[in-house]
Amino acid sequence: MKNEIKIFAPATIANLACGFDVLGLALDSVGDEMVIRKCDAKGIFITKIIGSDLPLETENNVAGVSALALLEKLNIDFGFEIEIYKNIKPGSGIGSSAASSAGAVWGINELLGKPFSALELTQFAMEGERLASGNAHADNVAPALFGGVTLVRSYTPLDVIKLPCPNELYATVIHPQIELKTADSRKILKTQISIKDGITHWGNVGAFVAGLYTNNYDLIGKSLVDVVAEPQRADLIPLYYEIKEGVLKEGVLGVGISGSGPSIFALSKGKEMAEKAAEEMQKIYEKLDIDFDIHISKVNEQGIRQINN
Amino acid sequence: MKNEIKIFAPATIANLACGFDVLGLALDSVGDEMVIRKCDAKGIFITKIIGSDLPLETENNVAGVSALALLEKLNIDFGFEIEIYKNIKPGSGIGSSAASSAGAVWGINELLGKPFSALELTQFAMEGERLASGNAHADNVAPALFGGVTLVRSYTPLDVIKLPCPNELYATVIHPQIELKTADSRKILKTQISIKDGITHWGNVGAFVAGLYTNNYDLIGKSLVDVVAEPQRADLIPLYYEIKEGVLKEGVLGVGISGSGPSIFALSKGKEMAEKAAEEMQKIYEKLDIDFDIHISKVNEQGIRQINN
Repeated sequence: MKNEIKIFAPATIANLACGFDVLGLALDSVGDEMVIRKCDAKGIFITKIIGSDLPLETENNVAGVSALALLEKLNIDFGFEIEIYKNIKPGSGIGSSAASSAGAVWGINELLGKPFSALELTQFAMEGERLASGNAHADNVAPALFGGVTLVRSYTPLDVIKLPCPNELYATVIHPQIELKTADSRKILKTQISIKDGITHWGNVGAFVAGLYTNNYDLIGKSLVDVVAEPQRADLIPLYYEIKEGVLKEGVLGVGISGSGPSIFALSKGKEMAEKAAEEMQKIYEKLDIDFDIHISKVNEQGIRQINN
Repeated sequence: MKNEIKIFAPATIANLACGFDVLGLALDSVGDEMVIRKCDAKGIFITKIIGSDLPLETENNVAGVSALALLEKLNIDFGFEIEIYKNIKPGSGIGSSAASSAGAVWGINELLGKPFSALELTQFAMEGERLASGNAHADNVAPALFGGVTLVRSYTPLDVIKLPCPNELYATVIHPQIELKTADSRKILKTQISIKDGITHWGNVGAFVAGLYTNNYDLIGKSLVDVVAEPQRADLIPLYYEIKEGVLKEGVLGVGISGSGPSIFALSKGKEMAEKAAEEMQKIYEKLDIDFDIHISKVNEQGIRQINN
């Protein structure tokens, strides 16, 4: 058994406009790094967190509780240390907690010789999401663990489908550095929607999936419609509609709120268009006195991966 | 220009459990026949209806108003006579009005040399649906016109996607001969749904589409979930849940209410299973004093077709 592994755990875009709580996509150019190390003491020990002020106590750390959920299924007389090098800012809406949660269980699973499937790892990592937001959702941890674009069909039982992804699909993400807690961002959503809005979403999710299977970029773009969360959450994000209009005019396929925000994503065909979207986002956001990051990334088909020390 | 055409206009299953108002599937073994004939007089004339007591006045007949919607787009100095041989009983929930509406415009389009696309014909045929139910829905007329399984992504603008269909996908449909008007069956639906139920539907529609693209019969079956219409409409259909449980036990992929009912459909892999489902449906329904028809059909990839006189 290998004693140590260093991994890259990607940021992810959940919801993807039409697929509230079910769709997610893994990014390639932004993510956390983690080192997972076997240790003699039983249990999970968060030994280092660099880049963010997150709790070191296992029970209060999303990576910690996810790893504990995994350990519960095993009968082993050793444990694991976890070092987390955060590059994804908590509260950014691109799956910061999911990267840590999924990364922890993926890394431990590798060291153990892969006893668990990606679906089982998703179930463990959902415990981290439960700690982070009060809701054990899978739409960020699933793409981190399966890679590419994923669809969570059902939670009882958990059923995750990895969808195909056209080669030239790129994401541009702007993260305005205002913190928006997933739990708060969920609270403002209505618990009831009109059946009309529901129909809009399930028509578009079906079309989005068809677009992925047929490399139909136009259809993928047309399907990025959100009448459920966007109308309520957009107000929490400065210049959301200006960004949306601006990059759509540039020619991106579609735009939406990444997860529960405040990050905004655009999907594009090709790197050039993704870069144009980034320029436009920057131009619009420079008007404000808010710090922001912009990421341009191909879709990450692999998901979490081992990296060299 | 040919002066006359005889066509077969298939019955269709709308909704397909998860895809309320968006999904539809064309049947092959049950449908109406129609004769469309060019005539010197301008306008549309319903000259014969056999098999059902439907209005002959053009403005009150679904085939009539659909054909008029088409004629409005043209400037021609002749008209068409339509004969309708109904095999699909009105109010059955397998697209009786849609078959007549779609058949009329498809047949006229053939005689005119196909000036209109399937999407344009869908738009015309929706006028028949508007007359029949007060709602210009496309989930029956689209599969009749495109064939196979269709998804209506959007109504404004109308966007229909023809989905692929595994070779061995069969439908079994039982039609209990109680009349249930689409308009009445729509009235009992709530206009609001929980976001949780919405998520269930868009997750399953996405998975259903993925199942079609990957010939994954198991996934197609698991996706046939209806938490929106079934709980309210099932009570209008005698022994609905007995049928559902009975045929699921036999091994069909999934079961649902066809359109707004009262027909119940089951999807199966292979003809043998579809026949077993039919036997089980019959066994259960013979307990009641209600007449019923049972249809077993492969999915009709072609949709409406010309037949010989």
